[in-house]
Amino acid sequence: MKRCVHAPDIRVSEAVERGYAQSCSCGGTLGDAGARAIGASSGALGVAAVLMRASPRVHRTPRYVREHSGREAACHRSWQSSLAELQTRGSMGPTVATIPRKLVALGAKPSVWLEFTPLAAALRAVNLGQGFPDWEPPAWVAGAAKNAVADLAPETQQYARSRGHPRLLETIADVYGRLRFHGRRLDPNRNVLVTNGASGAIYLAISCLVDDGDEVVVFEPTFDIYMGAIRLAGGIPRCVPLVWRAPPRAKVANEDATEPASCAADWCIDWEALREAIGPRTRVLMLNTPHNPLGKVLTRKELEQLAELVHAHPQVTVVSDEVYENIVFEGREHISFGTLPHMFDRCVSIFSAGKNFSVTGWKIGWMIGPEELIQRFHAAQQFVVFSVCTPMQVAVAECLAEAERRHYFRELAALYQERRDQLVATLRQSGLDPIVPQGGYFVVANFGKLPGFTNQFPAALSALEGGRVPGLEIDDATRHRADYNFARWLSFECGVTPIPLSAFFCERHADRANTLVRFAFCKQSQVLEEVSRRLQRFRDISGR
Amino acid sequence: MKRCVHAPDIRVSEAVERGYAQSCSCGGTLGDAGARAIGASSGALGVAAVLMRASPRVHRTPRYVREHSGREAACHRSWQSSLAELQTRGSMGPTVATIPRKLVALGAKPSVWLEFTPLAAALRAVNLGQGFPDWEPPAWVAGAAKNAVADLAPETQQYARSRGHPRLLETIADVYGRLRFHGRRLDPNRNVLVTNGASGAIYLAISCLVDDGDEVVVFEPTFDIYMGAIRLAGGIPRCVPLVWRAPPRAKVANEDATEPASCAADWCIDWEALREAIGPRTRVLMLNTPHNPLGKVLTRKELEQLAELVHAHPQVTVVSDEVYENIVFEGREHISFGTLPHMFDRCVSIFSAGKNFSVTGWKIGWMIGPEELIQRFHAAQQFVVFSVCTPMQVAVAECLAEAERRHYFRELAALYQERRDQLVATLRQSGLDPIVPQGGYFVVANFGKLPGFTNQFPAALSALEGGRVPGLEIDDATRHRADYNFARWLSFECGVTPIPLSAFFCERHADRANTLVRFAFCKQSQVLEEVSRRLQRFRDISGR
Repeated sequence: MKRCVHAPDIRVSEAVERGYAQSCSCGGTLGDAGARAIGASSGALGVAAVLMRASPRVHRTPRYVREHSGREAACHRSWQSSLAELQTRGSMGPTVATIPRKLVALGAKPSVWLEFTPLAAALRAVNLGQGFPDWEPPAWVAGAAKNAVADLAPETQQYARSRGHPRLLETIADVYGRLRFHGRRLDPNRNVLVTNGASGAIYLAISCLVDDGDEVVVFEPTFDIYMGAIRLAGGIPRCVPLVWRAPPRAKVANEDATEPASCAADWCIDWEALREAIGPRTRVLMLNTPHNPLGKVLTRKELEQLAELVHAHPQVTVVSDEVYENIVFEGREHISFGTLPHMFDRCVSIFSAGKNFSVTGWKIGWMIGPEELIQRFHAAQQFVVFSVCTPMQVAVAECLAEAERRHYFRELAALYQERRDQLVATLRQSGLDPIVPQGGYFVVANFGKLPGFTNQFPAALSALEGGRVPGLEIDDATRHRADYNFARWLSFECGVTPIPLSAFFCERHADRANTLVRFAFCKQSQVLEEVSRRLQRFRDISGR
Repeated sequence: MKRCVHAPDIRVSEAVERGYAQSCSCGGTLGDAGARAIGASSGALGVAAVLMRASPRVHRTPRYVREHSGREAACHRSWQSSLAELQTRGSMGPTVATIPRKLVALGAKPSVWLEFTPLAAALRAVNLGQGFPDWEPPAWVAGAAKNAVADLAPETQQYARSRGHPRLLETIADVYGRLRFHGRRLDPNRNVLVTNGASGAIYLAISCLVDDGDEVVVFEPTFDIYMGAIRLAGGIPRCVPLVWRAPPRAKVANEDATEPASCAADWCIDWEALREAIGPRTRVLMLNTPHNPLGKVLTRKELEQLAELVHAHPQVTVVSDEVYENIVFEGREHISFGTLPHMFDRCVSIFSAGKNFSVTGWKIGWMIGPEELIQRFHAAQQFVVFSVCTPMQVAVAECLAEAERRHYFRELAALYQERRDQLVATLRQSGLDPIVPQGGYFVVANFGKLPGFTNQFPAALSALEGGRVPGLEIDDATRHRADYNFARWLSFECGVTPIPLSAFFCERHADRANTLVRFAFCKQSQVLEEVSRRLQRFRDISGR
């Protein structure tokens, strides 16, 4: 166990146990004596202080991020620096409000987006890190929004009920009851809740199920927003990595029959690890299918095995993030966990207008589940956001009905499948090994089979830090991570920015992502063509 | 101290102390032995169980609310009933998720909206309970929304940054810096945060400032959403009622010079009570000016006195709800607390597009404050809603700029002042004593000077319950409250529905609202004329 060089004698026992911190930014594990330091300091401030003492580099706001498009980044860092200030003053300053423990929990880990969004902008790289479609929504989707804002009646321009606009609730209950939930009768006023996007739903679900010290099981790699919601609720994440299993027979790639293709289906639930992770304090099992970032679509068999486990653990509720429900490939079927026998009452499913209609900015999501859970989330929602944007709810109601009339989701899946195939082919031609996704709009690629260029990382790093990207400050915690360095190098050398996959793992499991990066393919065809052109340089270097 | 007839031996000591419950639905105070019951049961469930045992009437879902427009009501009650179920099972059932303590805190008090919204609908009464404008927003406001949804570029249809759309942030920083904050330079990326309406801002502020067991000082009567946010954060509300002080000289009413007029300005901060309420655990002082429901606009002198107190208590941050900033009458000035000397760093101010542009359904709000606080709220917002509706943010940016060009807010204040005068005159003609508001869109009226008709309450109650409004079930906790009964009687007898003011007080102070009800005047002139016609019957009965 490598010791932290900054604070070798500090062990943030409480913080580590609660998932607040795993290691110092130097990459070392925090030392032993800090338990006493925490004992001596009080609660939130103590933890904040110790965290900050152990992570001196996050205190400064780097010039670089201030000067580029990611001013966001500077702001986020400065929030961390305010925690640091508390520490330097020794105790709470005269005008600084104390920081609740749940917030301190958020402060520890630097966000991957804070480095790569501004990096891509500064280098004018094609940013395949960000997960939103760069195309226009369909004309009839835009038309629904136009209709909604043109209707100036109070029903469309004033507060909707906290639960959701009746028209949207009824449409969801009807469409999802018939189609997604196989004919189940859903009560619009008891089984559905409209939320401020799927993120709003995830927050509500976790905060209404998880009490201080409760545990949440998540599969890794994992969508990073889950971790924030868990920490804000005072919960403890229990991370179960998906593991790669050699497929029973070598699969043949679509385009290139010379080698077996990696496929998201080969990433499997480690049932033993999962069983070990579920304990008496487990309140939530976070499910995500189709999966971000792997693109795995859970099979009926896998879901049935999960249902057995859930049945055996009455203390567990499944929160099922199904926002990519309609982005599934090769005619695959997305199965909602709540449709399994007896599982409707044990699960809440989360869906998204943003993902379904290519309008992530509308921020309309919804949850479907048993009355007991939905009412609970509704009770909280009244005080979290009170209600959700009315005209956009009205527009989404029209979109859902229209999508069914048009069989639109087939079209959507076909569109994404084309983009996926385009990017997968490009990555493969470049000698990267893409894990072919079965759904969603990301592809994870393995660069581990082409080790030749890794010796170029240090040169790229110094170039980036030494003026080529003025002010860039690379976090010590990720300076030696191969996936981070590959993403930096690729941005710098080829002008294409992916996201390092260790960002989707907890510190303990980050090494599993050593040679993996994530690319988004929710981008226009010509953008992906440009990516292919830019990766020519990668092919030259890697000798493909 | 009246004992609870349902559970005379139960005292919910912890719950009462934490503000979870004050009394039983029978109107009695909960008994003594329950402390043991709580000791024997565990945490959240214990409290929930005891609360429910003491409030048997909330368990049933009344048929009435199911059958009428307020299906919402049934749903909310059923959330309460699910708490009750937990109790009847004795312990957690095999498929019921546990309820975090923060949520249990919400379950105790029946919401006033659950009775009066459906009641008004069932009786076809003019509902002056609900606080949203019933008119169309201005054409240029609607036009801004049309422009925003017509722009199909990713900047307008896809995720905005968590902090807010750059265009809106910059407009807010510019307009509010110059106008509201008297020329202060606001940094769009450090001093502003766009939220899901002002409610979203209130939740973020409270949840990021208040830790479990921390205290929040609120002035009563108080906007009920504050209490929910405080309870969800695990906070304890400390309620300081505003008190009526005889004005130094009898004021003369605008219209009717025969008697001195009641005015919101006569409701004053009880400085002694406020000083007593602020303690070492006080984290937040909730400010609301112009005030809902009283319509009081805090004077510079009052704000200065508050600033002195805040200065003396470094542990306190002011959360200043200023959503009615531009709805002030007789040329009065709204003063933002953050503009007082040294107070910018001690305060976060909350504003609302809904209130400013008569589009409460758009759900765009914003906070302005010191970097340290804004960054903290931003850090949490990433995981609460991630971001806020992009096209509506773009529309609001246009609205704010256009409002300045048009001097629109003068127009808005004049519009509301007209409506206020119309309703105040009507109420006065009816013998009710309206407390003339200085701002906002509510007027509180005193019916205490006309006691003649109170003997008609029992008859009205039996008529309402005995079939005239089928299925209506009046909550035991409010059955004997004069303000509730007046509101019921007025709805039944005259077809006009106000909201009883005790709903805006904690149980301990509810008696202060005995003869007060709140009417909204954000309604079209012809609606207020209809109110005047309907109150003729009231004049007949009361002999005016």
